[in-house]
Amino acid sequence: MSSTKYKKDKEIIADYETQVKEIRNQLVEQFKCLEQQSESRIQLLQDLQEFFRRKSEIELEYSRSLDKLAERFSSKIRSSREHQQFKKDQHLLSSVNCWYLVLNQTRRESRDHATLSDIYTNNVILRFAQISEDIIRLFKKSKDIGIQMHEELVKVTNELYTVMKTYHMYHTESISAESKLKDAEKQEEKQFSKSGDLNVNLLRHEDRQPRRSFVRKIEKIKEKRQAKYSENKLKCTKARNDYLLNLAATNAVVAKYYIHDVSDMIDCCDLGYHASLARTLRTYLSAEYNLETSRHEGLDIIENAVDNLDNRSDKHKIMDMHNQVFCPPMRFDYLPHMGDEVCQVSAQQPVQTELLMRYHQLQSRLTTLKIENEEVRKTLDATMQTLQDMLTVEDFDVSDAFQHSRSTESIKSVASESYMSKLNVAKRRSNQHETEMFYFSKFKEYLNGSNLIIKLQAKHDLLKQTLGEGERAECGTTRILVNQSHWLLKAV
Amino acid sequence: MSSTKYKKDKEIIADYETQVKEIRNQLVEQFKCLEQQSESRIQLLQDLQEFFRRKSEIELEYSRSLDKLAERFSSKIRSSREHQQFKKDQHLLSSVNCWYLVLNQTRRESRDHATLSDIYTNNVILRFAQISEDIIRLFKKSKDIGIQMHEELVKVTNELYTVMKTYHMYHTESISAESKLKDAEKQEEKQFSKSGDLNVNLLRHEDRQPRRSFVRKIEKIKEKRQAKYSENKLKCTKARNDYLLNLAATNAVVAKYYIHDVSDMIDCCDLGYHASLARTLRTYLSAEYNLETSRHEGLDIIENAVDNLDNRSDKHKIMDMHNQVFCPPMRFDYLPHMGDEVCQVSAQQPVQTELLMRYHQLQSRLTTLKIENEEVRKTLDATMQTLQDMLTVEDFDVSDAFQHSRSTESIKSVASESYMSKLNVAKRRSNQHETEMFYFSKFKEYLNGSNLIIKLQAKHDLLKQTLGEGERAECGTTRILVNQSHWLLKAV
Repeated sequence: MSSTKYKKDKEIIADYETQVKEIRNQLVEQFKCLEQQSESRIQLLQDLQEFFRRKSEIELEYSRSLDKLAERFSSKIRSSREHQQFKKDQHLLSSVNCWYLVLNQTRRESRDHATLSDIYTNNVILRFAQISEDIIRLFKKSKDIGIQMHEELVKVTNELYTVMKTYHMYHTESISAESKLKDAEKQEEKQFSKSGDLNVNLLRHEDRQPRRSFVRKIEKIKEKRQAKYSENKLKCTKARNDYLLNLAATNAVVAKYYIHDVSDMIDCCDLGYHASLARTLRTYLSAEYNLETSRHEGLDIIENAVDNLDNRSDKHKIMDMHNQVFCPPMRFDYLPHMGDEVCQVSAQQPVQTELLMRYHQLQSRLTTLKIENEEVRKTLDATMQTLQDMLTVEDFDVSDAFQHSRSTESIKSVASESYMSKLNVAKRRSNQHETEMFYFSKFKEYLNGSNLIIKLQAKHDLLKQTLGEGERAECGTTRILVNQSHWLLKAV
Repeated sequence: MSSTKYKKDKEIIADYETQVKEIRNQLVEQFKCLEQQSESRIQLLQDLQEFFRRKSEIELEYSRSLDKLAERFSSKIRSSREHQQFKKDQHLLSSVNCWYLVLNQTRRESRDHATLSDIYTNNVILRFAQISEDIIRLFKKSKDIGIQMHEELVKVTNELYTVMKTYHMYHTESISAESKLKDAEKQEEKQFSKSGDLNVNLLRHEDRQPRRSFVRKIEKIKEKRQAKYSENKLKCTKARNDYLLNLAATNAVVAKYYIHDVSDMIDCCDLGYHASLARTLRTYLSAEYNLETSRHEGLDIIENAVDNLDNRSDKHKIMDMHNQVFCPPMRFDYLPHMGDEVCQVSAQQPVQTELLMRYHQLQSRLTTLKIENEEVRKTLDATMQTLQDMLTVEDFDVSDAFQHSRSTESIKSVASESYMSKLNVAKRRSNQHETEMFYFSKFKEYLNGSNLIIKLQAKHDLLKQTLGEGERAECGTTRILVNQSHWLLKAV
């Protein structure tokens, strides 16, 4: 083996120091990384605070606008004469009720968005600020622990350095002692071989004495060196053992630090961060969900009122409110002239025959008129059905406009482009107007028919009664021949 | 019977005219009432249009504010270095993800409120305008029909007037004819009684001739008057019958008008009003409900992200991102000095005994240390649990703030007054800080303990291995006496 293959002490030390330096650099970088992480979080929390501060303002502006809007119309309603009447008379029309509820909903939205704004400012933002404080405090505390950890690493690497140096020293000494021992052994050997030559060639007595003391001296030196070598070798062994044990301990501590402690240190930095962030965001979510629930409740109230929109009930309320205008007048009474005692249709001869004829004419006329008017009524009903179908078409679903596809950023005006397009609206309305015109013309026709029928029917009924009464009681002014009346009733 | 009890013709006519006039007044008032009703509706629809016009503006302002807010932070994120890294490395932290989703939600709300604004302007308001048009058109058409109805009423009452007058006329004539007939009869009677006297007292032949012609004359007059009376009586009967029949017809027409026709006329005015109003309000509701559903979906996405807030995963992402900083360094290798061939702990005598002693010392020291450190760890765990309980307390429900009781108009700041009150916050935080301090002191203690343990354990394990290996192979530098090693292993 050649000594050039072994690293020199200085090289080993330099390599070791390089390795330790790399670790120290890593430790510094780790702190930097954690600090940067904390700063990112503080930045994030500042952004969140700033975001919610501004959002709180936006919500408050929105709330105020809504409140102003609702108040503008509410005050108008309060001051109006009609409202007083409605309030007093409990005659609130279903359509007006819807309008009032839309205003209520606006006030409700206003209040809810004000509450949202309040929760942002007085709860959410405060929480974010506290999390920021926590991050700063915990980063400091975690760094303290990190410093302690790093000191421990420095300590063990320094110790390792020391025991390594000690091992180097004792090993150097051990090598030196060994080489010295070998020198002594070499000298002794040389002496032995010299004395062998002497024994063979120059075995003189007078030379023996000084030679023996020389050999003993060499022997002594060798023993001394042997003892020194053994001592150094033991020291070296102990130092190597120490080095090896410390090496194991150092590697264990370093490994523990990298595998567990760094992670624990980060955990200390993180302590509660995610939980607090979650709670704050859940506060925000709770507010938003509650706003939404409240909004939903309000909308349900309106929807219920829309379901209860009732033209029949509104009509009756209006007629009740103006009952002096709509109440039927007194019947026109029969006013006998100047003590005329006759107060019923007289069906005695000679008018009887004429009345009977008239009665039959009325009867057949009515039959025809009723058939005709029934036809008109059927057309009228069918037209009304068509109109109703137009008027109740379910054209109010605008969900398409609220589809959020990821590909399209802006999909506004979908609802207005399809159903509410000018062309479609015009088409539908012209269709509606045509049907309406037809309906009204038919309605007039029907009204004329039914007016005529009601008049003739009244006359017919009175004649029938008059002519019929003759059958039951052959006395008074309405008396009639029994057989004629009988025939009449059969014919009806 | 005295004639003073009967109303005179003029009185009857005046009464009748009063009654007809009252009806006509009612008809005028009915038109006024319907007109007023239409005007109220047009006013209502104008209010609704004005309301939704302004609400549309408010929604658009709100939408723009939200968009601006989201854009402010989004552009900041886009330009930041971190974001590039996140995007590239797919290392988005769960906390940052929440923030991005809050911004997404803001953009979504912005878009939805813009859509709402758009639907108000291009759909809801147009519909209200159309309903207004409909009301005006239908009121006109209904009034036309009303006029026709009123004309019919005027016609029948005029007819009644005419037949009543005819009846009066014929009855007057009938009465007059009757009285004339009675005069003639009285004269005849007088003549008869005179002729009776004559027959008794002055039965002279020469007187008889002129008397007979006189009687015949009277007879003739009486017959004539009888005929006249019968004729008038018949005319009167017919006129009365006509009057009675027309009376029935008129009452029937008037009743029909008040019971059915007025109602039908109002129905004509109302035609489609409630249905169209309902459809328009349902469009508004559909928009609002859809906005809410979209908002809810967005909030659910955030909630899901909050549920997935994960400090462990974030920690690993950070460590992965900086893996050159956190990756464990190379182990420190044993570096033999100057060709030292020994590379393991030497347990040969004379160090063997010492190593064994050291091993036992390590063993007992470790046992004690581990017990002690386990106690520290238990305290640490309990403290962490306390902290976790503080950090995960469910204090984020703000539903109370959104309760809408009818009695209280403003119930804001409820949430901030209770949980987020300064006193409560300070109390909770000081409590948290104390626990945190205790945790960190215990953590340091635990870290010191575990560092010591890991070092001693590494030495212990190496010694155990070294001393143990002697048992298996009695050769090399780690050789040891079998019986000693045996005893050792038993003791471990």
